[in-house]
Amino acid sequence: MGMIVNCAAYQGGRRVADIDIEHDAAAALDLVPSGDGARADRFVWLGLHEPSEELLRRVQTRFGLHDLAIEDAHNAHQRPKLEVYGDSLFVVLRTAQWQAGKIQYGETHIFAGRGYVVTVRHGASLSYADVRARCEGAPAMLRIGASFVLYSLMDFVVDNYFPIIDALEAEVDALEGEVFEQPSGREDIGRIYEVRRELLVLRRTVAPLLDVCDRLMRFDVPLIEPDIRPYFRDVRDHVIRVAERIDDLRELLTSTMETNLLLASVRQNDVMKKLAGWAAILAVPTAVFGLYGMNFQGMPELHSPYGYPAVMAAVACLCGYLYYRFRRAGWF
Amino acid sequence: MGMIVNCAAYQGGRRVADIDIEHDAAAALDLVPSGDGARADRFVWLGLHEPSEELLRRVQTRFGLHDLAIEDAHNAHQRPKLEVYGDSLFVVLRTAQWQAGKIQYGETHIFAGRGYVVTVRHGASLSYADVRARCEGAPAMLRIGASFVLYSLMDFVVDNYFPIIDALEAEVDALEGEVFEQPSGREDIGRIYEVRRELLVLRRTVAPLLDVCDRLMRFDVPLIEPDIRPYFRDVRDHVIRVAERIDDLRELLTSTMETNLLLASVRQNDVMKKLAGWAAILAVPTAVFGLYGMNFQGMPELHSPYGYPAVMAAVACLCGYLYYRFRRAGWF
Amino acid sequence: MGMIVNCAAYQGGRRVADIDIEHDAAAALDLVPSGDGARADRFVWLGLHEPSEELLRRVQTRFGLHDLAIEDAHNAHQRPKLEVYGDSLFVVLRTAQWQAGKIQYGETHIFAGRGYVVTVRHGASLSYADVRARCEGAPAMLRIGASFVLYSLMDFVVDNYFPIIDALEAEVDALEGEVFEQPSGREDIGRIYEVRRELLVLRRTVAPLLDVCDRLMRFDVPLIEPDIRPYFRDVRDHVIRVAERIDDLRELLTSTMETNLLLASVRQNDVMKKLAGWAAILAVPTAVFGLYGMNFQGMPELHSPYGYPAVMAAVACLCGYLYYRFRRAGWF
Amino acid sequence: MGMIVNCAAYQGGRRVADIDIEHDAAAALDLVPSGDGARADRFVWLGLHEPSEELLRRVQTRFGLHDLAIEDAHNAHQRPKLEVYGDSLFVVLRTAQWQAGKIQYGETHIFAGRGYVVTVRHGASLSYADVRARCEGAPAMLRIGASFVLYSLMDFVVDNYFPIIDALEAEVDALEGEVFEQPSGREDIGRIYEVRRELLVLRRTVAPLLDVCDRLMRFDVPLIEPDIRPYFRDVRDHVIRVAERIDDLRELLTSTMETNLLLASVRQNDVMKKLAGWAAILAVPTAVFGLYGMNFQGMPELHSPYGYPAVMAAVACLCGYLYYRFRRAGWF
Amino acid sequence: MGMIVNCAAYQGGRRVADIDIEHDAAAALDLVPSGDGARADRFVWLGLHEPSEELLRRVQTRFGLHDLAIEDAHNAHQRPKLEVYGDSLFVVLRTAQWQAGKIQYGETHIFAGRGYVVTVRHGASLSYADVRARCEGAPAMLRIGASFVLYSLMDFVVDNYFPIIDALEAEVDALEGEVFEQPSGREDIGRIYEVRRELLVLRRTVAPLLDVCDRLMRFDVPLIEPDIRPYFRDVRDHVIRVAERIDDLRELLTSTMETNLLLASVRQNDVMKKLAGWAAILAVPTAVFGLYGMNFQGMPELHSPYGYPAVMAAVACLCGYLYYRFRRAGWF
Repeated sequence: MGMIVNCAAYQGGRRVADIDIEHDAAAALDLVPSGDGARADRFVWLGLHEPSEELLRRVQTRFGLHDLAIEDAHNAHQRPKLEVYGDSLFVVLRTAQWQAGKIQYGETHIFAGRGYVVTVRHGASLSYADVRARCEGAPAMLRIGASFVLYSLMDFVVDNYFPIIDALEAEVDALEGEVFEQPSGREDIGRIYEVRRELLVLRRTVAPLLDVCDRLMRFDVPLIEPDIRPYFRDVRDHVIRVAERIDDLRELLTSTMETNLLLASVRQNDVMKKLAGWAAILAVPTAVFGLYGMNFQGMPELHSPYGYPAVMAAVACLCGYLYYRFRRAGWF
Repeated sequence: MGMIVNCAAYQGGRRVADIDIEHDAAAALDLVPSGDGARADRFVWLGLHEPSEELLRRVQTRFGLHDLAIEDAHNAHQRPKLEVYGDSLFVVLRTAQWQAGKIQYGETHIFAGRGYVVTVRHGASLSYADVRARCEGAPAMLRIGASFVLYSLMDFVVDNYFPIIDALEAEVDALEGEVFEQPSGREDIGRIYEVRRELLVLRRTVAPLLDVCDRLMRFDVPLIEPDIRPYFRDVRDHVIRVAERIDDLRELLTSTMETNLLLASVRQNDVMKKLAGWAAILAVPTAVFGLYGMNFQGMPELHSPYGYPAVMAAVACLCGYLYYRFRRAGWF
Repeated sequence: MGMIVNCAAYQGGRRVADIDIEHDAAAALDLVPSGDGARADRFVWLGLHEPSEELLRRVQTRFGLHDLAIEDAHNAHQRPKLEVYGDSLFVVLRTAQWQAGKIQYGETHIFAGRGYVVTVRHGASLSYADVRARCEGAPAMLRIGASFVLYSLMDFVVDNYFPIIDALEAEVDALEGEVFEQPSGREDIGRIYEVRRELLVLRRTVAPLLDVCDRLMRFDVPLIEPDIRPYFRDVRDHVIRVAERIDDLRELLTSTMETNLLLASVRQNDVMKKLAGWAAILAVPTAVFGLYGMNFQGMPELHSPYGYPAVMAAVACLCGYLYYRFRRAGWF
Repeated sequence: MGMIVNCAAYQGGRRVADIDIEHDAAAALDLVPSGDGARADRFVWLGLHEPSEELLRRVQTRFGLHDLAIEDAHNAHQRPKLEVYGDSLFVVLRTAQWQAGKIQYGETHIFAGRGYVVTVRHGASLSYADVRARCEGAPAMLRIGASFVLYSLMDFVVDNYFPIIDALEAEVDALEGEVFEQPSGREDIGRIYEVRRELLVLRRTVAPLLDVCDRLMRFDVPLIEPDIRPYFRDVRDHVIRVAERIDDLRELLTSTMETNLLLASVRQNDVMKKLAGWAAILAVPTAVFGLYGMNFQGMPELHSPYGYPAVMAAVACLCGYLYYRFRRAGWF
Repeated sequence: MGMIVNCAAYQGGRRVADIDIEHDAAAALDLVPSGDGARADRFVWLGLHEPSEELLRRVQTRFGLHDLAIEDAHNAHQRPKLEVYGDSLFVVLRTAQWQAGKIQYGETHIFAGRGYVVTVRHGASLSYADVRARCEGAPAMLRIGASFVLYSLMDFVVDNYFPIIDALEAEVDALEGEVFEQPSGREDIGRIYEVRRELLVLRRTVAPLLDVCDRLMRFDVPLIEPDIRPYFRDVRDHVIRVAERIDDLRELLTSTMETNLLLASVRQNDVMKKLAGWAAILAVPTAVFGLYGMNFQGMPELHSPYGYPAVMAAVACLCGYLYYRFRRAGWF
């Protein structure tokens, strides 16, 4: 159900034309100014959600987008990247949200050029209505043009990674605590495995953004106004922080696994020492009782009235002594 | 059985001369226009399958190919690479297909220059008839010339890696599932080992392509028209995605191995605790029964009428108590 | 409770105006000379400790600081970095102190530009009163201007990492010693895990400083006088030393873990050999005593007067022989 | 026993003067034309095998070689490298051969300059008579001069690595197979260790060649004719292939070790389950037989005529049931 | 006890003025020519051993050394580095010696500039009297000036690493041998740990030299004469060889640890199989003897004259059969 979510024209930092999306999506699109104005502060911001191929093709025709970018936008399973086609940009972002103890991924594709910004959302991603509102609340910045909208979208996407990292960190903390308190069961180990897997995917989501920000910030990419560069540097900084925290969590979990393995080995030694110790103690009565269960005739002890209590006492003493020795050696 | 699979001349994006391959291969080759036209849109596309050395030598003479490239083309065990000889290109690609739960590898060598594209297939690779058909279906692009054919071939080869990755991912998912459900047997571990090995080989197949694409895209290589560069960027993007998925699978399998080792250790602890627990419980009747099997004379319990039931009851109680204790400690 | 800790104006290396902080912080700030003098040796050094947003805004207005830097300064959880805004610098440092067997982290943000240095402290960090005193004690250097103050602050922060490394090294030495002396208990392993975790965080604190120093030293950053560059090279050298020692400790702990695991395995073998050995020795009397506990009629040994002592002697000999053999094989 | 192995002068791709080595080595050297001709196609090719220091000094004087290169050439334990002294080259290669299941290493030092190529062989390396013959068989190439001889020697040395890799691969395949078929014994593990060690040394032998080829191919080194550069690119390609195969083998062996460890753990679990199962089954008769070995008076079962067979039947049933249960649980 | 070890003036490669160090160190220093001659071949070479701060300050004043360098020279715990202050060099080297099975470290700081070389030794390092003698024995080289002295010192320090590597390699070889011959005891494992630790420290000592040599060799550092550059390239080559051997040893020890762990696991399996096998064999007589120890009345076997020998024979046969089976299965 491809649809236009929102569409408005901006000039000098303010919304000047609002396009009604009650109408048919395609018709609405025809109302959009063609956006080839030479002034950076005049542009159309069009938001799409899982558009049909037909709608995408119309958008392509109107804004003169590159075939390959449209192909990518239709086919949601891209890695985050920045492509420069002539003087327009195509940015792919992967959005992520923490839902019910799992990370849900979505994708947002952004086309930005002189006079237009088109966002295409796929899958589980938050609406960009908030971003639009925040942009409209800062007309001084919005006047900079399409590159400010691009910054706002990237900032929003990256900021949404932080609660996920927080949740994963909390989980790792909990897993860590359990490792030292009790022998890890299958559930804990399985959970460690899953978190490692999630971190692997999340890293793939976040890491390529570093390269995207680097290029937006440093190189001679079109469309990016000089005033906005420090803002992309700020986004880059957030990306690095997310990436570092992911790496730290991954390293911590590796460390947790190693520690777990060592603790399992230590615990096995403990069990084995206990086993060996009790086997040794119980060997005493077994041997002695077996001894006096023999049917030899010439066994004087059997006939002495003190034989039975004496043997029992000897066994008790020996067992007690062994118990004391093992205890002192730390086996029990 | 070296043979010419297909041979045609193109001009302005359309097939203008079709060479009959019913004739002797060598004779057919003589019919090929010499291809030294200065116009990029006029070229011969010649497809060979495991050609004889003699045929390769004729092709070399006709198109003026470099000795070293011909040597490589004859000897199929190259790593993927791009060589520039003067103003012609020599590209080695490794093709891969998923057949009967295994990856089958082939090799394709491409010579491309002003006026010609020669493909040489070795081993298990799909025919490029589809690629040719698709190219002929897009005359607007085919007009660009030999570099578009090169792109189409590379795109086809790279796209064929995706079903392999999908198959390997499915397998890794299945192996993962089994790790947590039951103790890994030799078959599972052997399969993990094999998949790791396959990923090792696949990575060697895919990774060098990144460098090939980088050079085709960025540097001043001959023959590549500017319009086609974004397309090589697209191929590069696919290569990165394949490479990343391979790396992810490798990391997952490493993680699976570690988890497996830890689980094996945990399971061993479980077995040992059970063993120790039952040994402890059984030690009770063993000791008691041994005790009253002794032949001492002065053992009053033996002569009491309540001796037997009392001892049995005591043993039962003690065993029951131990069982309860071990159960509560999580040993059973 | 945002507050101005200290505020003074310097000229030619000497303190020329001392601003009384007994008054309201905001009022005090108004007394500060505006600091846009063209001479490098004339500047204001303002120290803040966890300032309120309102105070930060006033500072921003007065010195013309960038919005993003102020945002960062208010929000303490930055990674160490250097940002250049026009001809002013914004440096984020993470301070660390060893307190009660743990590392306590703080943050210091430094704004430096023509005519001013503003330090903003967050969390557990030492006061910079010492740094100020030391700077004032070296007027020849202080005359260089704001970049010397920046150097002095960084030098102070980096020098404070050394006692932490010393403490961690001492701890690692102690843990190492214990590994070889006795089986590692849960506490040791837990402590190794914690130290690894602390090193992970500390590395994140120290490593980005290398990049900060590199840029301050080499590139064309504003404000840094040529004479001061060797001093930043010196700071960089200290950072490298700290980073290398952290890496060494991390590697040592990895090595310790591996050694621990191997030793646990060796110890388990030892226990198992002992267990097996004693089980073998005790099997002898068990079998023999069981043998002569049988109730067969035709067992001549039972009726011989030498039967009992002969059997006991045979058992003792056999056990002694086994003990000797195991001893020689190194099992006991 | 330093000696001149072969010495000839070449011009225009053909051998023009053959120097008899029947004479004293030193005398023969005096017959060598001084080789300072300005034409690249005229040069002397001198082959030495473990020369005495005195002979090396004479060679040095004649061709004006650098002190440091001569020192290196005398002292065979260099790493592969390329040194440029003025307009002459000094190349160190490590040769390798597979002999009796081991790699035998040798060293070849090559001095190449205007008008001369001097090869110095040390240790177990093949004679370069074949290389000389092959060069003389390709006069068109040999006309290029000293750089073609250098290429031919490097090509020969690198091609000799392939059979070694093949042999090691075969060995790794065999070791892999054994890992899954039977528990690894000490011999297998020892062999894995040895192969890893051999690969470590081989990698050190091969890897530096990449840098040598890169410099010969790309940079502005003297003596290398432009026509010969693609040939060095070809050598580089072979070096990469050898290096990649070494890395793959190393990774496979790491994987084999991990798999081995996991399998050892799985096998231990199997043995322990068997041990525990049989212990449980045998505990039944032990307990029951002990029970009826007691000497209590009031044990009615002992006096019943069906007591003995009933107890035996009960024991058999219980043991059989336990066996069935363990079997179903996969313990046997 | 700061002192001047040796001090002499050189010109044209020969020692022209010898300063008597019998006098007070400070007075001796005043006799030193001020060394500001413009000719490279005229310089003073001053050797100090753990000088007092006061002496260092005098040296600083005389030769115009930088404050930071003097601070470093006084405080011995630097990492190897090269600092350029104006047109003078400051080099820090870490010296190492193999003494009583341990590496003893020292430090040497070298100040070199137009007209002077000052060496400052700290800790356990060899005297540089040999280096001085060797330099004076090569007047042709010594004429080059201070950079030749610098080379000679570095060459001497680096050459002294080789015997250490040889000793460590011998130790690793010995440890390797023991791993495969017998189960590793705590001493072996402890020794492996220590060697790994020593290699860690040694690597930190050697690795930074690579960067020092690179800069001395390639970049536009002051003072280094062009003729001496190949010599620094030679030192660099030695450093690489040392570094590679260190890395190889580290990798070998990692491999040894893994192998050790696997062997420990294999050995444990062997012990457990033996334990299980003997337990099974001994279970037979235990059960049978227990059986005929029962006090049932209706046990006809007990009363048969062949009962006893028949049962004994059956037990012996069964045990023998089991022993044969376990032997064939490789458990014994």
